[in-house]
Amino acid sequence: MAMTGVLRPGHAQVRVLDLEEGIKFYRDVMGLVETGRDEHGRVYFKCWDERDHSSYIIREADQAGIDFFGFKVLDEATLDQLEADLQAYGIETRRMPAGDLLETGERVRFTLPSGHEMELYATKTACGNGMSMVNPAPWYDESEKGIAPLRLDHALLYGPNIAEVKKIFTDVLGFFLVERVIGEDGESEAAIWLSCSHKVHDIAFAEYPEPGKLHHCSFLMESWEKVLRAGDIMSMNDVAVDIGPTRHGITRGCTIYAWDPSGNRFETFMGGYQPYPDYEPLTWTFDNFAQGLDYPQRKLHETFLTVVS
Amino acid sequence: MAMTGVLRPGHAQVRVLDLEEGIKFYRDVMGLVETGRDEHGRVYFKCWDERDHSSYIIREADQAGIDFFGFKVLDEATLDQLEADLQAYGIETRRMPAGDLLETGERVRFTLPSGHEMELYATKTACGNGMSMVNPAPWYDESEKGIAPLRLDHALLYGPNIAEVKKIFTDVLGFFLVERVIGEDGESEAAIWLSCSHKVHDIAFAEYPEPGKLHHCSFLMESWEKVLRAGDIMSMNDVAVDIGPTRHGITRGCTIYAWDPSGNRFETFMGGYQPYPDYEPLTWTFDNFAQGLDYPQRKLHETFLTVVS
Amino acid sequence: MAMTGVLRPGHAQVRVLDLEEGIKFYRDVMGLVETGRDEHGRVYFKCWDERDHSSYIIREADQAGIDFFGFKVLDEATLDQLEADLQAYGIETRRMPAGDLLETGERVRFTLPSGHEMELYATKTACGNGMSMVNPAPWYDESEKGIAPLRLDHALLYGPNIAEVKKIFTDVLGFFLVERVIGEDGESEAAIWLSCSHKVHDIAFAEYPEPGKLHHCSFLMESWEKVLRAGDIMSMNDVAVDIGPTRHGITRGCTIYAWDPSGNRFETFMGGYQPYPDYEPLTWTFDNFAQGLDYPQRKLHETFLTVVS
Amino acid sequence: MAMTGVLRPGHAQVRVLDLEEGIKFYRDVMGLVETGRDEHGRVYFKCWDERDHSSYIIREADQAGIDFFGFKVLDEATLDQLEADLQAYGIETRRMPAGDLLETGERVRFTLPSGHEMELYATKTACGNGMSMVNPAPWYDESEKGIAPLRLDHALLYGPNIAEVKKIFTDVLGFFLVERVIGEDGESEAAIWLSCSHKVHDIAFAEYPEPGKLHHCSFLMESWEKVLRAGDIMSMNDVAVDIGPTRHGITRGCTIYAWDPSGNRFETFMGGYQPYPDYEPLTWTFDNFAQGLDYPQRKLHETFLTVVS
Repeated sequence: MAMTGVLRPGHAQVRVLDLEEGIKFYRDVMGLVETGRDEHGRVYFKCWDERDHSSYIIREADQAGIDFFGFKVLDEATLDQLEADLQAYGIETRRMPAGDLLETGERVRFTLPSGHEMELYATKTACGNGMSMVNPAPWYDESEKGIAPLRLDHALLYGPNIAEVKKIFTDVLGFFLVERVIGEDGESEAAIWLSCSHKVHDIAFAEYPEPGKLHHCSFLMESWEKVLRAGDIMSMNDVAVDIGPTRHGITRGCTIYAWDPSGNRFETFMGGYQPYPDYEPLTWTFDNFAQGLDYPQRKLHETFLTVVS
Repeated sequence: MAMTGVLRPGHAQVRVLDLEEGIKFYRDVMGLVETGRDEHGRVYFKCWDERDHSSYIIREADQAGIDFFGFKVLDEATLDQLEADLQAYGIETRRMPAGDLLETGERVRFTLPSGHEMELYATKTACGNGMSMVNPAPWYDESEKGIAPLRLDHALLYGPNIAEVKKIFTDVLGFFLVERVIGEDGESEAAIWLSCSHKVHDIAFAEYPEPGKLHHCSFLMESWEKVLRAGDIMSMNDVAVDIGPTRHGITRGCTIYAWDPSGNRFETFMGGYQPYPDYEPLTWTFDNFAQGLDYPQRKLHETFLTVVS
Repeated sequence: MAMTGVLRPGHAQVRVLDLEEGIKFYRDVMGLVETGRDEHGRVYFKCWDERDHSSYIIREADQAGIDFFGFKVLDEATLDQLEADLQAYGIETRRMPAGDLLETGERVRFTLPSGHEMELYATKTACGNGMSMVNPAPWYDESEKGIAPLRLDHALLYGPNIAEVKKIFTDVLGFFLVERVIGEDGESEAAIWLSCSHKVHDIAFAEYPEPGKLHHCSFLMESWEKVLRAGDIMSMNDVAVDIGPTRHGITRGCTIYAWDPSGNRFETFMGGYQPYPDYEPLTWTFDNFAQGLDYPQRKLHETFLTVVS
Repeated sequence: MAMTGVLRPGHAQVRVLDLEEGIKFYRDVMGLVETGRDEHGRVYFKCWDERDHSSYIIREADQAGIDFFGFKVLDEATLDQLEADLQAYGIETRRMPAGDLLETGERVRFTLPSGHEMELYATKTACGNGMSMVNPAPWYDESEKGIAPLRLDHALLYGPNIAEVKKIFTDVLGFFLVERVIGEDGESEAAIWLSCSHKVHDIAFAEYPEPGKLHHCSFLMESWEKVLRAGDIMSMNDVAVDIGPTRHGITRGCTIYAWDPSGNRFETFMGGYQPYPDYEPLTWTFDNFAQGLDYPQRKLHETFLTVVS
């Protein structure tokens, strides 16, 4: 968690074209645990090892994409402070009422210069990971239903003005830059990986003309063997795979990119190293981005650059 | 090993365009152990865990490709018997003299209807795997120099008349069919995987108009994690990767295909199941070959079908 | 498979003290697939990836232990030949009628000088591994129910006269010696690992005063990660673990030894190398057996030497 | 990192009985990178993936054990603040001069009620992990020399008064309690696992009558397969192994405990989950500590409780 009190990626709300199809996919193929449905037609999921009520929420809409991405912060005082800090920085914020999202307290919502809706919140009901708080097993049946990621790990978002976005995350929210890709001009940052912890990324952005776009939400897997198992399950269920299994040069993480039935890309991910705020960021040059994306193949997959939702 | 006494793939001789470049690649990147050079300019390698003198031999030529692929048989009596069986079947054989290949006895050479030169031999000097025969360690330093496969596992060869080739392997040499891909006509076998053991393949063939072509020689890795490590090493050394890391549907094996500097494809491979001669072969339909080739991606990589040496 | 036509370990019949408890253990914890029950009260299981009707059979008795261990051979002609060979060697054989074991043909039964009942048989109904013969997936739901081994791999049996046992396996049945432990006298073989394939063991014996004892039946796992998962499941189900997870020096295999509720030891096993009949056996000295047994710990677990059923 | 600005375990100074033997062990067997020696005879090491100058320092002494364990903090202002906080809490602190440890700034030293010397420091020369800051490879040669852990992960220390120790870490330094073992009395905490990040432990303590004792320093491995490899290397080098390879129930981490030649226990460790400060701690009951220690075996290894340095 950041020294500002931002803990971790807490939830994402994503649009699907067909709700039933989306539920089936995220519950049966991805293996998320359904934890609720609300009056707005939203369906709530969590990964089996997450303890809070929900981390991934879907709703039906005419167009796929992401509604918002939210970070959990330490407590309500931290939330107030961060809201004040954002406003002091010149960012307009608004409060979403407690209960608007099931089992979730008030959320501070703001819009990034990249066109993405971000949220901070301090309160979400802890309903546990399905295992005892006393003498727990390391895993249980839900850990093997479908792809069954451990948790929502991060998101990569595409939009304009990421230099400004970076400032907000580093100067106000307490994130630090872990890795970056330098653009064709040799100077500007074409993509940035930001951490509020010692994960290689809690959120990432790539410069893109259209605002508010989702490249992927990433789900954490336990091992490279589990990434393979995820790929097997994708194939068994006719999931459209984009890239992988492979290793990213960037972050060292191992990955499969694929699309949900509505065209939202997701990632099943493991690995990477443990950066800290005193680490100098790593830099990938524009001409070597292919190796950064797909380390073994050193291949610049066109879809990575152009397909978003 | 087959009940005929065919033990295993023993050696392959492959042509490279530049010998020094080839030596550097197979020794330093692939991590094979160099075991000798002969007066014809051939350089001999073995994988670290193989005990016989050599399994992979390269020579410089104007064109890449495979000179011959050889199987070790149990003993000289077996060799004589198999030679007689081949001749009785109507296949012309000839004896390559002992010592023509370093530390190797007489070889029975014959040409397949696919245009490939095959060999059987019974004698090759056992020089051990570098570890003691008494209280051995499970591995040693050479196990981690370069990609460091355990052994030469199999080859996939492209050429015409594979129905006839199959008969020779199953009726004369004692192999059995493990898996097959049915061609566009819905009847003929477009590709066949043959075993003389309980490996998913000791040799494989795909129907192809040009005779004598090499699709790949395959090297066995210990684990899916070692396949990833192989991919890392390929990238570190600018090796051209074709496909993977991924899982084949066919054989269940996990793989990376890549090319040596001369354009000979090789595979770093692990996994698969254990078939026996009493097993009914598995069949892949033409329209689903993509999943057979690249299980997670279900992608029919064009190169697999068209690029050979 | 051996050149004599012995294919592989086919089935073991093991005695349990309480049948219902045994069924629950082997079905729910071990994750074997129950395939039948017969009029003698026997319950038949197979591992998910095995294709024949059954490989592990339990019956209730007052004392735990093994009734017999059987190898599948290529066909009925091979069975006749091997029976004749055994008799010619001076071993008495008898025929168990077809159908005595469910879905199994005639079995040739004989008693080893170690006091173990062995069987050869050629016919057992192939009922498949639960996956299609056309375009099969690499695994399916049963692959993850309980420990879910791939197959019955081998057994280690304790009894007297293993020098004579070795001769029968090598001279008559076509097995070869892969590894051995030399006894305290520096000469005799205290334990032997025998293969009829290129597995590191299809059966193993240790010299022991009492005849007919079972040390363990071994079940094959896919990976070191799956061995850990097996250990997790053992703990979740209060299974008594003996040794592991660890690596054997002998065979390089990775293992957990544990006991079924009746006190029959079993092994969940993966790894090892691929020996062939032309390989010189590896030798472990008496004073270094601890490293052969438990490579990382180099610990001579007392139970390994003394606890059998 | 904690919201107080405590980043991570930074260094440990450990006493060895024979310096040359210690150097050989930590450099050649453990595979640490030697980074310096000072005028006091101390030898400095780092793990290959650490970027700061050193994390593990040894010196020769008559008795094995730990001299001090230090945490890196964000910057000098943070160091001043934490020193003030410690003093305000009633803990005496003293400054160790910059340069006393090579390439290290001023350290704030204090003694815990458990008798352990702790340090905080803000400055240590970043010398990198041996790979480029631009387009880095995921690993390099040093990653495979010896056991080659990624980093110093945590320590477990034995001493009295851990209830008071816990207060200092949670109330002053910003750590949170992740897991705990309840003592025989059913109330007091016999052992505590504390995090200043989202690691399952950055430091841990067990109640023990003798002050200032080292149970183990733990080194992070990349995978369960690398833990096995570590065990292989231990055996190859006659390292005395205590427990493992196995999984802890506590933290879910996978482990081998072993001793350096002087009798300092160390751990090669991987896995665990990602706790955050808003997580309720997990509790292990006294009667189930065996499962917490060795999950598969559920065995209360006596050495764990009694052997320290």
